Amino acid sequence: MRWSEGFIAVDWGTTNRRGYALDASGRLIAETEDDKGILSVPKECFPEAVAELRAALGNKPLLMGGMIGSNRGWREAPYVPAPAGLRDLAGHLQWIEGENAAIVPGVSWEEGESADVMRGEEMQILGAAAAGLIPQDAVVCHPGTHNKWIRLEGGRIIRFKTVMTGELFNLLREHSILADLLWEPAAPNAAFARGVERGLAEDCLTADLFSVRARVLLGKMPRQDAASYTSGLVIGTDVRTGLKSMAAEEVVVMGRPELTSLFAAALDVAGRKSRVIDGEEAFLAGAKHLVEALS
Amino acid sequence: MRWSEGFIAVDWGTTNRRGYALDASGRLIAETEDDKGILSVPKECFPEAVAELRAALGNKPLLMGGMIGSNRGWREAPYVPAPAGLRDLAGHLQWIEGENAAIVPGVSWEEGESADVMRGEEMQILGAAAAGLIPQDAVVCHPGTHNKWIRLEGGRIIRFKTVMTGELFNLLREHSILADLLWEPAAPNAAFARGVERGLAEDCLTADLFSVRARVLLGKMPRQDAASYTSGLVIGTDVRTGLKSMAAEEVVVMGRPELTSLFAAALDVAGRKSRVIDGEEAFLAGAKHLVEALS
Repeated sequence: MRWSEGFIAVDWGTTNRRGYALDASGRLIAETEDDKGILSVPKECFPEAVAELRAALGNKPLLMGGMIGSNRGWREAPYVPAPAGLRDLAGHLQWIEGENAAIVPGVSWEEGESADVMRGEEMQILGAAAAGLIPQDAVVCHPGTHNKWIRLEGGRIIRFKTVMTGELFNLLREHSILADLLWEPAAPNAAFARGVERGLAEDCLTADLFSVRARVLLGKMPRQDAASYTSGLVIGTDVRTGLKSMAAEEVVVMGRPELTSLFAAALDVAGRKSRVIDGEEAFLAGAKHLVEALS
Repeated sequence: MRWSEGFIAVDWGTTNRRGYALDASGRLIAETEDDKGILSVPKECFPEAVAELRAALGNKPLLMGGMIGSNRGWREAPYVPAPAGLRDLAGHLQWIEGENAAIVPGVSWEEGESADVMRGEEMQILGAAAAGLIPQDAVVCHPGTHNKWIRLEGGRIIRFKTVMTGELFNLLREHSILADLLWEPAAPNAAFARGVERGLAEDCLTADLFSVRARVLLGKMPRQDAASYTSGLVIGTDVRTGLKSMAAEEVVVMGRPELTSLFAAALDVAGRKSRVIDGEEAFLAGAKHLVEALS
């Protein structure tokens, strides 16, 4: 197998994986998606899970990013400390099967007592910068289970901050006393904007969350507003935290469209411009430029 | 059945219930506890569940407080709006079985867009004030699944604020990415104090929570410190929120000993004095004084 003749890029997460076949010029020619995230694959079954991908996408070399490189994945790829660019990732790939498969490492950041880690977002962000989709110097907000705020300088990740916004919202929707109020999908409507304003202004999220229940019980908030308001509350809190950590007039919002639209709306409420970049496009750019950096 | 000859007081919550038999002078003569919280009793089975209590504690009138009066309980007892004292509760009991059983209402608070509700804590707080266990004017912190901060004036609840601290910590421990770090019981040790300091000082709880994982992964925090540190983080955030909402030099901390000790330790870090009151003793005082107010 030769990388220059095309390869398979895999975004291999905790609960899902997406595989893409790229031709010699880096053009997407086929793709597949399933629910074989790392948690559903026993350690010894990764070779088999990879064989399935090759059966679907062609017998090519494999570049894998995301949780596949965590201690729960196929092979641990230790974090590369920030500042980190695409060449730093390329220099620290975790090679498997000789030179036919590689796992992209995550990025870590430490300063004094503080520390943070990412695994998966780095390929999108550095890929978007390498492909010119975003400036070399930028603040990027990457919504997801663990939302990241990233400071990019000269096309490298300088520092970043993770906020557990997506996971918190999912915990609330699935397991909390607010669960029966949060079944509707959140939308960037007027209730969402009110939640964002509250999240931006105040610093008692855990009190504001309970007040959603109280206000619905006492008839002060329509039940159908609760999901959007609560989403606005946690996202507004997130945006306040991110902008406090890294000041920016314009923020790049990168990720899945259903999440980037909510964060772009929240940034608008916060008086900031935003530029939305599709995470999948950025991932493919990252894979292509990373493989180019290998040769 | 005559109330003046003694009665049964029941603290009937979501997952547990505690029953106490009091004699004519209000002295505790027997008690029972089981897991028949309201969520495990179908609506039509409450008479049977009450019969069990009488079989264990004597055939006496029944005074019930807590979630038994919620829309998911035996019979809904609408909230009494603050300011509310023990006589207000006594005047709005929800009577069942003629005059042989009564449910104590919860308390609500509204101001502008803000709203809050409590159900269960009011009997403890007002009981402690009526019995002279705490001053008539006080700030009370009542830890639990939904922690309450209460301003008491003239022995009445003037206003209060709920913080979802206990529920958040349980969600994190049971369902989150931090779950495997939080299995140890939290203790008011040095790691706890560091978490409290961080929670008191900063306002990005959802970012600080993720950093626990990052710091353990990168070897900056011993794994065995994670539970106490995280507990300190959420409790410190809670104390900051409570003290911001109602300034106090001394705070009464009321509830179960395993929780009050953590909150008292956090208040100490915040430079506040605290006085710990056992919640069960306060509940019994509330029941006794409430029944006295009936005659």
